[in-house]
Amino acid sequence: MQNFTLHTPTKILFGKGQIAGLAAEIPADARILMTYGGGSIKHNGVFDQVMSALKGRYVLEFSGIEPNPTYETLMKAVDIVRREKIDFLLAVGGGSVADGTKFIAAAANYTAEADPWHILLTRGAEVTSALPIGVVLTLPATGSESNSGAVITRKTSGDKQAFMNPLVCPKFAVLDPEVTYSLPPRQIANGVVDAFVHTVEQYLTYPVNGKVQDRFAEGLLLTLIEEGPRALKEPTNYDVRANVMWSATQALNGLIGAGVPQDWSTHMLGHEITALHGLDHAQTLAIVLPAMLNARRVQKREKLLQYAQRVWNLTSGSDDERIDGAIAATRHFFESLGVPTRFSDYKLDGSSIPTLVSKLNEKNLTALGEHYDITLEHSQRVYEAAL
Amino acid sequence: MQNFTLHTPTKILFGKGQIAGLAAEIPADARILMTYGGGSIKHNGVFDQVMSALKGRYVLEFSGIEPNPTYETLMKAVDIVRREKIDFLLAVGGGSVADGTKFIAAAANYTAEADPWHILLTRGAEVTSALPIGVVLTLPATGSESNSGAVITRKTSGDKQAFMNPLVCPKFAVLDPEVTYSLPPRQIANGVVDAFVHTVEQYLTYPVNGKVQDRFAEGLLLTLIEEGPRALKEPTNYDVRANVMWSATQALNGLIGAGVPQDWSTHMLGHEITALHGLDHAQTLAIVLPAMLNARRVQKREKLLQYAQRVWNLTSGSDDERIDGAIAATRHFFESLGVPTRFSDYKLDGSSIPTLVSKLNEKNLTALGEHYDITLEHSQRVYEAAL
Repeated sequence: MQNFTLHTPTKILFGKGQIAGLAAEIPADARILMTYGGGSIKHNGVFDQVMSALKGRYVLEFSGIEPNPTYETLMKAVDIVRREKIDFLLAVGGGSVADGTKFIAAAANYTAEADPWHILLTRGAEVTSALPIGVVLTLPATGSESNSGAVITRKTSGDKQAFMNPLVCPKFAVLDPEVTYSLPPRQIANGVVDAFVHTVEQYLTYPVNGKVQDRFAEGLLLTLIEEGPRALKEPTNYDVRANVMWSATQALNGLIGAGVPQDWSTHMLGHEITALHGLDHAQTLAIVLPAMLNARRVQKREKLLQYAQRVWNLTSGSDDERIDGAIAATRHFFESLGVPTRFSDYKLDGSSIPTLVSKLNEKNLTALGEHYDITLEHSQRVYEAAL
Repeated sequence: MQNFTLHTPTKILFGKGQIAGLAAEIPADARILMTYGGGSIKHNGVFDQVMSALKGRYVLEFSGIEPNPTYETLMKAVDIVRREKIDFLLAVGGGSVADGTKFIAAAANYTAEADPWHILLTRGAEVTSALPIGVVLTLPATGSESNSGAVITRKTSGDKQAFMNPLVCPKFAVLDPEVTYSLPPRQIANGVVDAFVHTVEQYLTYPVNGKVQDRFAEGLLLTLIEEGPRALKEPTNYDVRANVMWSATQALNGLIGAGVPQDWSTHMLGHEITALHGLDHAQTLAIVLPAMLNARRVQKREKLLQYAQRVWNLTSGSDDERIDGAIAATRHFFESLGVPTRFSDYKLDGSSIPTLVSKLNEKNLTALGEHYDITLEHSQRVYEAAL
């Protein structure tokens, strides 16, 4: 096992009706900016629940944070924070709203002369202060509600960049599975795929004998495989939604990745597809992952065999046959959720692959994976294999 | 799944050499009281590592915290804290030192007129302030290094009581598996049994469809079953010690018990055996658990069957045969670690059972278990079945 530091300070309030307890988690005299997305929370009752919980408090609203939240939109919120002396941010939404709110929290307190986009260029290293954040989660997927990372897009340049800093880790997160009942199936499916791939990217590397981490990861994968399809078929089954929601949080709060190698190459290659073609984040992961696993079958051999056995119960056939079976089962799982796994399914013919690869090059993403040996040429072949 | 609040704010520094980074986690101007036990840390290098890490800092020492830490000893440390204006407590040791230090932290700031033993009588509810605590863990077992609970014994009355309060949850915990190499086999075995029973008491109740919690618990049990015996046979195998250490922490930081029923009856019955006869905590758990599981086989039926299948791979025979098999395997596992599972193995003949039961009665522990239906009569029969 590798050395690690693990800090998961976000207080989780999980279950039916937990939004009502929100006010106790925010200082009584806080000047709150509530951030949200396109307004679905006004139709599903979440907005009313939050406002009711915060009755008598100072609350301003900032709406319009997009999927793949943009610097351009978020800087408008930063202006409001500074002008209105906001001192607490309450993100009500999914991963995009949480991510965007993390940028607002850091940018509002960013004292350097430079443009706050510098926070992204330095991957968060220069953040020395941030507003406190709480999250009311409406879409289980990214894990952003209890981690320190965020991904922000700059419209003008088409860039999609990540930053991390413990200062933007939410103080609390409210997770009520009931608020997910009204989500469109596509968003639930995307969330399951996202959580699944987060888990895989911290699990399918090379063995370091981290038995707790491996079994926790396998537990999340098995849960998502069982509950993902049911979440679509039985949208108001509370326990199913609860299991999906809790899996997504645990998949990316740092726990399963502590002390083990990680491989975020599928995310890196996927981000470029979203930036260029606007595909949903999870769709890009579903395209890249099966091709990536196949391309890395030598380097990931032992863990792929463990994955085949423990997650997909594949115990017969040769090593290569079991690995083939596990990759095919992964692909089939994504497809069964209605998330296609090839570029062609999204009417993309591969002509943009040179552009995708040159974007990776611009960002110096030229040595990806747990061995830092996935070159641009390898990435190009993975894109090509996913046609 | 049940509603829950989960807060795991302890920052974990895990791995070889992590003690060296200790100073960065404690305010530079802190007046530190370092608490420890019988002095084994002076022989295994841990004391020197800690002192070296804290070079130039203000550090006083308080040694002599016993296994099953006593109120009488701890109150001497409270006097030192008050007299020397200590503002940070660094516990260096196992669960007893961590637990004792939590009491010191709460008692030092206890402003009520009443004797600080009142903290125990009110189970921690009246604690409104506590000194910050850090832990350097030397013995993986209790999980106390990253939770809010403590168990304290009062010598004069022979009482053993627990209290919980988030204010005494350690700010950080340093877990270096190498410092466990020199532990006596009995302490390692006890630690594995303790962590195993902690997991079982949050897992073997009735199903609420908490799939993540179940699989995480099963992952810990499987890891302890694989690594426990190896920890004894290969005392300097780093990964084995790391897996045991990380399992013990995860077994009782709140994670696997969040959102599921819990049954701490084995602990309650065990505490009285330690208080009366001085047996090691884990020895008492090894005595009580198999008898308790057998006595509760109707109420725990579904989870016992799940345990039989997923943890012990028992898939043939009738339901009752598989339950018998799982309980027998549990007993055999404890015995294989050198921890006997019957009163008679410890030269106890059962003549004290009426006293044990009357102690439970004094503490109103008359409705234990996840259904609150384990009466004194049931507890008596469990004790008798464990002869």
